[in-house]
Amino acid sequence: MGIEELSLGVNTTWVVLTAAMILLMEGGFALLEAGFVRYKNNVNIIMKVFADITIGTLCFYIIGFGLMYGADLGGIVGTNGFALTGDLSHLDIPIGLETFWLFQCAFVIAVISIVSGAVAERINFRAYLLYAMLMTAVIYPIAGHWIWGGGWIALLGVQDFAGSAVIHALGGFSALAAAMAIGPRTGKFTANGVSSIALPSNLPLASVGAFLLWFGWFGFNAGSTLSATDVRIGHIALVTMLSAASGGAATLFYTLFRHNRSDAPSVINGSLAGLVGITAGCAFVSTPSAIFIGAVSGLLMMAATNWLETRRIDDPVGAFPVHAAAGAWGTVAVGLFATDGGLFFGGSFELLGIQLIGLVALSAWGFLATWFGLKAIGLVVPLRSTEEEEEVGLDISYHGIMAANQSHEFIQYHNQYEQTEQK
Amino acid sequence: MGIEELSLGVNTTWVVLTAAMILLMEGGFALLEAGFVRYKNNVNIIMKVFADITIGTLCFYIIGFGLMYGADLGGIVGTNGFALTGDLSHLDIPIGLETFWLFQCAFVIAVISIVSGAVAERINFRAYLLYAMLMTAVIYPIAGHWIWGGGWIALLGVQDFAGSAVIHALGGFSALAAAMAIGPRTGKFTANGVSSIALPSNLPLASVGAFLLWFGWFGFNAGSTLSATDVRIGHIALVTMLSAASGGAATLFYTLFRHNRSDAPSVINGSLAGLVGITAGCAFVSTPSAIFIGAVSGLLMMAATNWLETRRIDDPVGAFPVHAAAGAWGTVAVGLFATDGGLFFGGSFELLGIQLIGLVALSAWGFLATWFGLKAIGLVVPLRSTEEEEEVGLDISYHGIMAANQSHEFIQYHNQYEQTEQK
Amino acid sequence: MGIEELSLGVNTTWVVLTAAMILLMEGGFALLEAGFVRYKNNVNIIMKVFADITIGTLCFYIIGFGLMYGADLGGIVGTNGFALTGDLSHLDIPIGLETFWLFQCAFVIAVISIVSGAVAERINFRAYLLYAMLMTAVIYPIAGHWIWGGGWIALLGVQDFAGSAVIHALGGFSALAAAMAIGPRTGKFTANGVSSIALPSNLPLASVGAFLLWFGWFGFNAGSTLSATDVRIGHIALVTMLSAASGGAATLFYTLFRHNRSDAPSVINGSLAGLVGITAGCAFVSTPSAIFIGAVSGLLMMAATNWLETRRIDDPVGAFPVHAAAGAWGTVAVGLFATDGGLFFGGSFELLGIQLIGLVALSAWGFLATWFGLKAIGLVVPLRSTEEEEEVGLDISYHGIMAANQSHEFIQYHNQYEQTEQK
Repeated sequence: MGIEELSLGVNTTWVVLTAAMILLMEGGFALLEAGFVRYKNNVNIIMKVFADITIGTLCFYIIGFGLMYGADLGGIVGTNGFALTGDLSHLDIPIGLETFWLFQCAFVIAVISIVSGAVAERINFRAYLLYAMLMTAVIYPIAGHWIWGGGWIALLGVQDFAGSAVIHALGGFSALAAAMAIGPRTGKFTANGVSSIALPSNLPLASVGAFLLWFGWFGFNAGSTLSATDVRIGHIALVTMLSAASGGAATLFYTLFRHNRSDAPSVINGSLAGLVGITAGCAFVSTPSAIFIGAVSGLLMMAATNWLETRRIDDPVGAFPVHAAAGAWGTVAVGLFATDGGLFFGGSFELLGIQLIGLVALSAWGFLATWFGLKAIGLVVPLRSTEEEEEVGLDISYHGIMAANQSHEFIQYHNQYEQTEQK
Repeated sequence: MGIEELSLGVNTTWVVLTAAMILLMEGGFALLEAGFVRYKNNVNIIMKVFADITIGTLCFYIIGFGLMYGADLGGIVGTNGFALTGDLSHLDIPIGLETFWLFQCAFVIAVISIVSGAVAERINFRAYLLYAMLMTAVIYPIAGHWIWGGGWIALLGVQDFAGSAVIHALGGFSALAAAMAIGPRTGKFTANGVSSIALPSNLPLASVGAFLLWFGWFGFNAGSTLSATDVRIGHIALVTMLSAASGGAATLFYTLFRHNRSDAPSVINGSLAGLVGITAGCAFVSTPSAIFIGAVSGLLMMAATNWLETRRIDDPVGAFPVHAAAGAWGTVAVGLFATDGGLFFGGSFELLGIQLIGLVALSAWGFLATWFGLKAIGLVVPLRSTEEEEEVGLDISYHGIMAANQSHEFIQYHNQYEQTEQK
Repeated sequence: MGIEELSLGVNTTWVVLTAAMILLMEGGFALLEAGFVRYKNNVNIIMKVFADITIGTLCFYIIGFGLMYGADLGGIVGTNGFALTGDLSHLDIPIGLETFWLFQCAFVIAVISIVSGAVAERINFRAYLLYAMLMTAVIYPIAGHWIWGGGWIALLGVQDFAGSAVIHALGGFSALAAAMAIGPRTGKFTANGVSSIALPSNLPLASVGAFLLWFGWFGFNAGSTLSATDVRIGHIALVTMLSAASGGAATLFYTLFRHNRSDAPSVINGSLAGLVGITAGCAFVSTPSAIFIGAVSGLLMMAATNWLETRRIDDPVGAFPVHAAAGAWGTVAVGLFATDGGLFFGGSFELLGIQLIGLVALSAWGFLATWFGLKAIGLVVPLRSTEEEEEVGLDISYHGIMAANQSHEFIQYHNQYEQTEQK
């Protein structure tokens, strides 16, 4: 047993374990989104996440990984590595290629899952499948090449440690484009301004999702080191926790004092916004900065939620506010708070400017590629459910089943039993 | 700090963490099964899983582990190590005995939990407790000795890396025997062919279960190396992911194009079948082979589901299709696809033949031991719930409680509140 | 790569991963408690846990950690390290300070989450926020200093490996004080002795919580080594599993044979009691002792539940029975069963006496600090919900939302659909 062999093993197990944690975040997305939408669309939204994991994984394997990490062509796109074949020796990684692939795969299905929430309750299921293939095979991998695959944004020097920009801002702006392209749910914006859409269907279920996401985020951020001996791991995990706490606390106190009630969906999404916001800078900013970044992330999430309402854009689970708003802020925040080069810590405007360029490029790419991609898909299949499908619910329309099936006899015995209990 | 000491620590933490992940799969089994059966039996099925973990762990401690890993007697059974006593120096493991025990314990309670689903909604609870003791103390440990404890199947050269055969095929064929011995639920198969059994009671809950199982499977397969420096870990995790994705995608597309809807329970079970199918070969087959194995696993799961219906065998959660069908295929697939000795990769029929012998022996043992074991238990307590217990639901019959208790005042305020919201 | 650098990396990843597992226990607490209380208070209890994580983390960062681990003043309190500043070189830890902090943070929010259950369904939300700050900033950190920060209890030689005393007994006695200070829920104890409080609202949800807690406990106990090369890790994980299994099995069999039904809430809480009971001694007692400790923990939990009923103290989720009763027993059990110094293993009464002193001090501190702390908070805001808030439910009263919102159209289509299915 040599120390190099042991070191490789340690890095490998670290990355495999954190990749599994990130993959568990898919459960988090599914349940968070299911809890936030109406019962009649619960199965559909979970099936969309299953499509992300199953089809998305295969598309990334066959095409996406090669575009992202293949040999660079002009700073724009990778050109080999499809189906994990070809010479990938240009990758400088402290783990094996297969382990690296698994970790990257966990990231791409997180991106598509962000979009799945914004189109909830009214996208045609077949159109979604085509879009999921496009995102995991092409849209995200090309952007990923720019920043993490040695492309032009990487060469600029943009700092996006675990992906506030390329995962969350790109995913969030794609979600915005998709929500706009498909239009709001029937009844969401009415003439008299009163929405007839019901409240979140199941907050405990949404909470299970949030806790799984929070847990997985430690893998997301700390695992991005790809090396167990990276001395930044403890710091990364610490600021991840503090930013999430700060984002949640900010929204808890804000809604408590502003509206005299602490709003549960806001607190859940505020914590997640704190996690999104620190994702770019977790390896670069100080602990107090992380607390500030998290609090602003939570409040920006709330402002973005209001902005969507005023623009009559319907994003049922808050994908844009959580991922785009907090992700954009987190990317910019690196330019402000990075201890090495941040404006507030002795740096110049240079890093801030670079961060802004990277952010705008990735966000615009996500928005435009999704917008035109969906328009193209719309030439093949309808983008949107029919009115009837939407009213009946996508669960019955596309999956022939409902989320919760309490048989009549259940209710009957339930009542009998309760009477017995009263004695 | 010497390198040997560090290496032992690394192996130990790797195995403890993956064992904890496998134990979390018990939560996965419980919720998947609860979501698939009727509300009135939700508590009962969760209690069966609690019985698996609590009683099963103690039975494996006192008896099972010794039969499985004790000093070999004639290739048939282990003879010491009961309650972790005696000389177990014949075990050649890169971790301490106690860590090894914990990992093995996580496996045995997975096996019994497979069976718990097949007998859902109509087994007598006390009969189940006795069967769980039999399985964890005797049936699985003896089979485990044959293949992993140095017994006759191991000597043949059967390859079953993390247990497609000894965990899943054995568990699945035991489930089949149990389902046949106890008979179908009342109303499942009627004269006019229309089942009166309700659909899955709670698909979001079942999905939580599936996500926990998927997460735990990385521990199941990659942790089976027992060593953090095993160079196969990255490959194992990768093919585990790809096979699961492939199994889920195959069922998603199949049900979408065949029935014009993607069927949620099929997609969930298809992903799980992909995981089961790759469990034997995850360390032996190539990446493309894994994708093929997963897709076939998903489709075989569907075929087996149909076969059960035609044979009028009632397996409420699909334990046989997921675990036996995909597990048997996965065991055979090693003989076909193993890069070292597989028929399609320059090998001969030898490995394929050996795999078949091992598979038949383990499946037959599981089926017969369960069948006769249940018959013996039936001499002591009734195997099956009374008609009344079944109709009222096992939750009230055996546990005096219901899964969901919405008080009358809840419904009253709920309605008032919704009226307020409409303004 | 030197071996020291690798060793530090291994310890860091071990502690970060186990800290993440402990933080996931917050999801466990939230769902367990939500499942045990009435629907109308589900959101509130989850929001209390979010307050624990978000506000608690910040309070511990700013104040608590310094009081606990700062430079010792007279064995009573720490005096620096606030906001992670100052000289903390007196800490002798095999990991970096930031990693250590994260692990400790996971502990403090577990303590406050224990109390959240006991005050469920009737505490004023603002009063709870103030109490959560008090607990995470002052009460627990001071006690923690006594035993883990080099204070007077540590100097006595009290053995509390992962916190049966300082986490669970202190949390549980704080829960008792809080339950007494706030009084029982309206309708819990009536003149004719019949409670009008409904049963657990959602046992599958509570089970999700229990499984997450069980999983996290491996991080809680084994991670407390803070070092991946601690040779006790395998043993700790093993006895943790056995004690949990034993606690669950004891309550399963007890309720089955005593009441002819195995009571689900008792089995769930029995398993958790087994985990609590072994937390102090997991590194010090033998495997058979662990099984005994677990079984007694489960049965003591049931006895304490009955005792609360006779004293008319209302603890809706069993915080006192699970954490205080089993935690106190676990602390005492070290004095009886420790292989080094335990009374039954060749030791004297000395360790037993020391354990009792430590237990009494920590429990009394928790009880009194909580009691007087709540009285002080009561001077600022009402401690208790108004009668109307309690009757309507805290979800609507404090958060303006309900846990489950099934719109009318859902129920309508549900019924239509079921009729279609009957064909």
